[in-house]
Amino acid sequence: MSILIQNVLLNDERKDIIIKDNKFSKILDPTDSIGSSDLLIDGTRFAILPAFYNMHTHSAMTLMRGYADDIELHSWLEDHIWPLEANLTEDHVYHGARLAALEMIKSGTVFFNDMYFFPYGTAKAADEMGLRADIAPVLIDGMNAARAKEMIAYAQETIDHSGDYSSRVRFAVSPHAIYTVSAETLKRSFALAQKENLPFQIHLSESQTEVKNSIKDFGLRPVQYLESLGILDSNVTAIHCVHLDDRDREILKKHNVSIAHCPASNMKLSSGHFDYVKAKQADIKMVVATDGACSNNNLSLLEEMKIASLREKAFSGDPTVLPAREIFDMTTIKAAKAAGLNAGKIEEGMLADCLLVNLDHPTLVPRGHLISDIVYSANPECIDTVICDGNILMRGRKVKNEDDIIKGANEAYRDLIRK
Amino acid sequence: MSILIQNVLLNDERKDIIIKDNKFSKILDPTDSIGSSDLLIDGTRFAILPAFYNMHTHSAMTLMRGYADDIELHSWLEDHIWPLEANLTEDHVYHGARLAALEMIKSGTVFFNDMYFFPYGTAKAADEMGLRADIAPVLIDGMNAARAKEMIAYAQETIDHSGDYSSRVRFAVSPHAIYTVSAETLKRSFALAQKENLPFQIHLSESQTEVKNSIKDFGLRPVQYLESLGILDSNVTAIHCVHLDDRDREILKKHNVSIAHCPASNMKLSSGHFDYVKAKQADIKMVVATDGACSNNNLSLLEEMKIASLREKAFSGDPTVLPAREIFDMTTIKAAKAAGLNAGKIEEGMLADCLLVNLDHPTLVPRGHLISDIVYSANPECIDTVICDGNILMRGRKVKNEDDIIKGANEAYRDLIRK
Repeated sequence: MSILIQNVLLNDERKDIIIKDNKFSKILDPTDSIGSSDLLIDGTRFAILPAFYNMHTHSAMTLMRGYADDIELHSWLEDHIWPLEANLTEDHVYHGARLAALEMIKSGTVFFNDMYFFPYGTAKAADEMGLRADIAPVLIDGMNAARAKEMIAYAQETIDHSGDYSSRVRFAVSPHAIYTVSAETLKRSFALAQKENLPFQIHLSESQTEVKNSIKDFGLRPVQYLESLGILDSNVTAIHCVHLDDRDREILKKHNVSIAHCPASNMKLSSGHFDYVKAKQADIKMVVATDGACSNNNLSLLEEMKIASLREKAFSGDPTVLPAREIFDMTTIKAAKAAGLNAGKIEEGMLADCLLVNLDHPTLVPRGHLISDIVYSANPECIDTVICDGNILMRGRKVKNEDDIIKGANEAYRDLIRK
Repeated sequence: MSILIQNVLLNDERKDIIIKDNKFSKILDPTDSIGSSDLLIDGTRFAILPAFYNMHTHSAMTLMRGYADDIELHSWLEDHIWPLEANLTEDHVYHGARLAALEMIKSGTVFFNDMYFFPYGTAKAADEMGLRADIAPVLIDGMNAARAKEMIAYAQETIDHSGDYSSRVRFAVSPHAIYTVSAETLKRSFALAQKENLPFQIHLSESQTEVKNSIKDFGLRPVQYLESLGILDSNVTAIHCVHLDDRDREILKKHNVSIAHCPASNMKLSSGHFDYVKAKQADIKMVVATDGACSNNNLSLLEEMKIASLREKAFSGDPTVLPAREIFDMTTIKAAKAAGLNAGKIEEGMLADCLLVNLDHPTLVPRGHLISDIVYSANPECIDTVICDGNILMRGRKVKNEDDIIKGANEAYRDLIRK
């Protein structure tokens, strides 16, 4: 399969771009001869941009979108989310993850790093929808080290099922957090990730309460506790990291850990202030993510980029921090790199993940400062076409099976709340 | 002209809604007979919601969208915005305001309160596009009291031209700020607003610098300075009010002044923290607004609602503050009231301003918590139809003359930066 996108705007220049199989094979001046292709797209109205990579989701939680808002964290979890999650089935998760995939495609995202229950439901959805995904079953042993063996067997089982899905879909390793997972399971799950050469994600230092309890229970702050267990490395993504001190930042840098910053979720749940400026000064790898739809309440990285930049400018008192290009790179090239993908840039030889955005969309007018407009002004409607791994997932804002996905998600939600 | 919207979701119930001329004339159960109408809309896929009212804009600044981002405030104004504004013509403003109107309609807004140069350009655009607007020429005398007479004559002249436009469009009175307008012009412009029974808007306490200089120059904080001039009343909207103390809040409450809160703009420019909780405790009237596209960078109140609520939860540390319904009301019924309109609610006898939102849009799925989804999840694409004053401004996301508006705005921008 080959696609020729003709006369499209790439970094202020018009280009012809050829996708062959799953890579950008040629980027030419439109005047040069280019031969034939299976599909021709007239790019005159469009700019081509890298797609977005969402480094932390609980995708099936789209089913709980709007179910419990504006509620104190403790009650949000214990009185609303957990009771509902107790009734989840793999079928619910499949329908929730399909809705999430639809939403992500429509807002330009082609990869998500997911942590949730019933990972086969999520993997099936991601595979069918044509997305890339790292999907991890959420490991929670209730601080009971005796359950470590069972947890690791569960994680290993999912990894062993990787062959059931497209190579776009991988299973990964994700213990939930230091306050829900015993040291034994943390250590063994990390060893599993190292053995299998897989990404390892964990929620870390999300709330002040987590930090306080960590000091009380382990005599160490969360980051320092993880280091003491020997489980920080370059394949680790620490999610949130709202509450860090200088020593924490030094440790994350030293072990080449990535931070997945989730600004909308942190704001909505009043988790505290992630200090981007200090993390940047410490030269820590950083990416941005939406978290689950239950604490956001959507999965749009387009929106997340603006919120991230505005939040940082507001908190730091400096309107020059986290400028448009920087947050755009965190959501494209840097996120793809953190996900281990040779993607995130429109370049010959890179994986063919990209967006065609409509230059006549009102939020991108007047023309002339596309990255700024994408970050600060655009909404998903400006994205006309989404290509992932050389396949067209959306064209003219139409995604296959939309009606069926919406119907399935509505039915799954009604079934879930009835239980 | 009459419109019948059949079987549409209104507050969790299916209704038939009849619009006659510019009002909602009947709201009936779908089983009741309703007679004929000039236009029939099948509402089965839709919910009907009040439209949004934007209480502070500089609409033509859409032309400067993305022109100067991520820059320190002083340099932003002096090195970038003001030099460009010096070249503005009425034609530029017309094209910028048309683009703004297009953007506002597409994101569900039917009214804007505008402060800018060349108000006839803005009035023409608002009138043609079918929007409601209060439009004020921005009064700036460079602190030169000798120019007061000229300023007031200018404001009076625009007011005298009100008859040239639809009754949806009004001219209003807006001195820019206490640091750009002399006490004499402030007092006389306020007297003009009172004489003509018109709204009066002013930027107030936006930055810490403004407060410091006010104390230095006038011996009073900005709010107290305005009170000392006798120009606070129920027709006054004070824009921003980022920096208030308890006494300021008491004064604003005492004079029944409205605050137009512009969260995205305040965050992007690092203006400081508007304390919504304290303003609410002081029982001050509050509405929400986008400010100009140059400091936001769009005019979507849908987006602004989410940013407002998330910002407040983050700053206050309390996830229960500014819940979805409260910010939704600030953008609909309360804003319409502050604009002096009998609108903002779908009720018999109210002005026929409304939105039809597509219940199958992924961001509104699963169904069952529409206001939360609108505030925290939706993007403008979910809005199918916009009706203002009984006229359809958008249907199926199509607005008349879109291509011409985009072309005009691009040309106006190129002309402006060439000068």
